[in-house]
Amino acid sequence: MAINTRILLAARPDGPPKPDDFRIEDAPVPEPAEGEILLKILYLSLDPYMRGRMSAAKSYAAPVEIGAVMEGGTVARVEKSRHPHYAEGDIVLSHSGWQSYALSDGRGLRKLDPAVAPVSTALGVLGMPGFTAWSGLLIIGQPKPGETVVVAAASGAVGSVVGQIARIRGARTVGIAGGEEKCAWVRDELGFDAAVDHRAPDFERQLAAACPDGIDVYFENVGGKVWDAVFPLLNTYARVPVCGLISAYNARPGENGGQDRLPGFFRAVLTRSLQVRGFIQREFADRFPEFHREAAHWIASGQLRYREDIVDGLANAPQSFIGLLEGRNFGKLLIRVSHEGGIQSGVHSIGIVTPL
Amino acid sequence: MAINTRILLAARPDGPPKPDDFRIEDAPVPEPAEGEILLKILYLSLDPYMRGRMSAAKSYAAPVEIGAVMEGGTVARVEKSRHPHYAEGDIVLSHSGWQSYALSDGRGLRKLDPAVAPVSTALGVLGMPGFTAWSGLLIIGQPKPGETVVVAAASGAVGSVVGQIARIRGARTVGIAGGEEKCAWVRDELGFDAAVDHRAPDFERQLAAACPDGIDVYFENVGGKVWDAVFPLLNTYARVPVCGLISAYNARPGENGGQDRLPGFFRAVLTRSLQVRGFIQREFADRFPEFHREAAHWIASGQLRYREDIVDGLANAPQSFIGLLEGRNFGKLLIRVSHEGGIQSGVHSIGIVTPL
Repeated sequence: MAINTRILLAARPDGPPKPDDFRIEDAPVPEPAEGEILLKILYLSLDPYMRGRMSAAKSYAAPVEIGAVMEGGTVARVEKSRHPHYAEGDIVLSHSGWQSYALSDGRGLRKLDPAVAPVSTALGVLGMPGFTAWSGLLIIGQPKPGETVVVAAASGAVGSVVGQIARIRGARTVGIAGGEEKCAWVRDELGFDAAVDHRAPDFERQLAAACPDGIDVYFENVGGKVWDAVFPLLNTYARVPVCGLISAYNARPGENGGQDRLPGFFRAVLTRSLQVRGFIQREFADRFPEFHREAAHWIASGQLRYREDIVDGLANAPQSFIGLLEGRNFGKLLIRVSHEGGIQSGVHSIGIVTPL
Repeated sequence: MAINTRILLAARPDGPPKPDDFRIEDAPVPEPAEGEILLKILYLSLDPYMRGRMSAAKSYAAPVEIGAVMEGGTVARVEKSRHPHYAEGDIVLSHSGWQSYALSDGRGLRKLDPAVAPVSTALGVLGMPGFTAWSGLLIIGQPKPGETVVVAAASGAVGSVVGQIARIRGARTVGIAGGEEKCAWVRDELGFDAAVDHRAPDFERQLAAACPDGIDVYFENVGGKVWDAVFPLLNTYARVPVCGLISAYNARPGENGGQDRLPGFFRAVLTRSLQVRGFIQREFADRFPEFHREAAHWIASGQLRYREDIVDGLANAPQSFIGLLEGRNFGKLLIRVSHEGGIQSGVHSIGIVTPL
C-alpha cells in the first residue's frame, strides 16, 4: 500500500532551524473526490523564503501552523483524476508542500510540457526563482549597457539568473559567492566579468577592485556583511532591488546591537539618490509569460545556463534546507521526491534545455 | 559709496551651527567687465540643504570653503549691465549666495516676470522647494486617489506644497508639524485632512489615529523620531521619496548608538515591498517647465497656497538659518537683502499669486 510521507513543522526555530523543528509522518494516500485529482510529487523546491514561513513574525505571507505540512512549490504527476481538465500522467506545477502525495481541485496548477524543458526547471530557472531574477533586475534594477551589476549568492537559483541576464543586457557583471568553486563556475561557465569570494579575508577590498566604476545595480538577496561591503560602492542613482535577506533569516530578535546604521543609510540614500525597493515576484505576475518566453529562448540559445542541486528522498529535505540557509547547496536546490517521473538527469545536473 | 556685505563661512560647525561659524565682511561693490552684469540681491533663500554645504563630509555637492561666501539661491535686480541679454532693472533668479551684490556672466540666470508672480516665489513655491515637492511626490511617490500621503515639516516650503498637491490629486493628506499653530494652518488654510504635532507626548498614537488605513506615500524630509513613528505604518508597496533629513543635519559623527535599526528596516523593505528613493530635484530638471505651468495654474486658481517668512537684513541670515534648522520659521524662509525691489508685501506674507 502506498504511503503519503509528510514533513510537518514541529516547532518554530529559535535561530537556525534544527532537525527537531521538523517531524516526519506517514499517512495513508488520500482518495480524490469528484472534481479532484491526486498528485504524486516528483520534485520539491527548497527556497530561502521558507524560513520566513517557519516563524510567527508578521511577513508578506501567513506562517505555516505548528503541526501543518511545510509549504513549498512542487512538480507533480497526476496519479488519479476525477477532474475534467486533468488526465492521469499529466505533469503539473503545484504548491503541494513537503509531502509525497497531495490532493488538488485544480486551482493554482499549471500544466508542464516535458518537451519544452526538463520539468524541474519550472521550480528554478523557468519558475519562481528565475522570474524573481528577471523581474527584480529588469523592472526595478533596469541596468543599462556598461553599468555595473552586482549580485550576491551568485551561484544560486536567483543570483545565477540575475547575473546572466545582466550580462545579456550588456552590463558589467560581478558575482559574490561562497568559496572558490562557486566563484569559478560563475565566472567561467556563466560568463560573469568577475566573481568575489565573500569568505576571503580581504573580501571588501576584492569587491572594490572588481567594481572600479562603482555599483549601479545591486541585487540584494543576502544582506549582512555583503551589504556592508556593497554599500560604500553604490553610485549615485544606484538601484537596489531587495528580494531576500538570507543572512538575516536565522537571526534572533534583538540579536543585532552596536552602532545604529540606519542614519548613515538614509544619508547615503539622500546624498547618492539611491533607490531601495523590496519586492516579491508575484507583484509582477502579469509579466510572467514575457519572462518565460524570453528565458526559454535564452536557454535554448545557450545564453542562459542553470545548475540544479538535486537531493534524493523527501526525508532529506530538513537537512538540505538547513544547509541551504548556510550556503551548502550549489545551484537550485531540489528534492527528488519520487523517481517515477523518470524524466530528469542525474544529481547535480547542469543543464541547458534540449527537447527530450 | 555702496558696500557689498558678504557673509562668509568662518568655521565648520560641530553640531548645530553657531553665530561664530559665520563672519560678516564688507567689501567694495565690484565693477562688471565686458560681458558681465552687476546684480543687486533682493532676496536670499535660506534652505536646510545649506547645512550640508557647511560640512566637509562628502555629499552630492562640494562644500563651501572656509572663508568663502555662503552659497544660496537669490532673486536679484540687474544694477549695471555690460551683457547683451540683460538690461538694468531686469529681475533674475541667480545663485549669488549670502551677499548684497554679485557679478555674473549670465550663466545659470533665469529672468523673472514680476507680472506673473511675486518674484520671491521663484525661491519658494515656484522654485526649487516647490519643484522638489512636485517631482518627489508625483514622479517618485505617485499617489493614487484615496491613498494616504504623509509629509513632515508640513508647514515648510516643501512640505506645504507636497500636501496640497497630494490633496489636489485626491489623496488623504496628513501633515506633521511642530506646534499647534502650524498644525492649524496646515489643516485649516491648506486643506490637509489631518495635522499632527510632533511635539505632542502621544505623537506616535496621534499619527496612527490620523492614518487609519496606513501610509502609502511618506515624503521624507525630516528623519529621526518622525521616521520612527511613520515606519510601522507604511503599507505594502509604500513609496518613500527622500529629499532631506533635517533632524540629522546637526548630528555629530558617531552620535547615534544603541540598537542597530538597519536590519529591521531591510526586513520591512522586503516583507512590505517598500520603495525608498533619495533624490535631488535637479535630476528631473527637464520637467521643470511642466511643474511651473501646473503650479502657477494651481496658485492662480487658489488651489495652492503658500506662506513666506521674510526676515529683513542680510545680517540676520545666520541667526535665521540657525532657527530654520530648529523649526523656528513658519513658511518659506527668505532674507530681504534690499528693499529696492519694492515689489513684495510685508513680512510673514501669506500669498496667492495675483498680477501686480
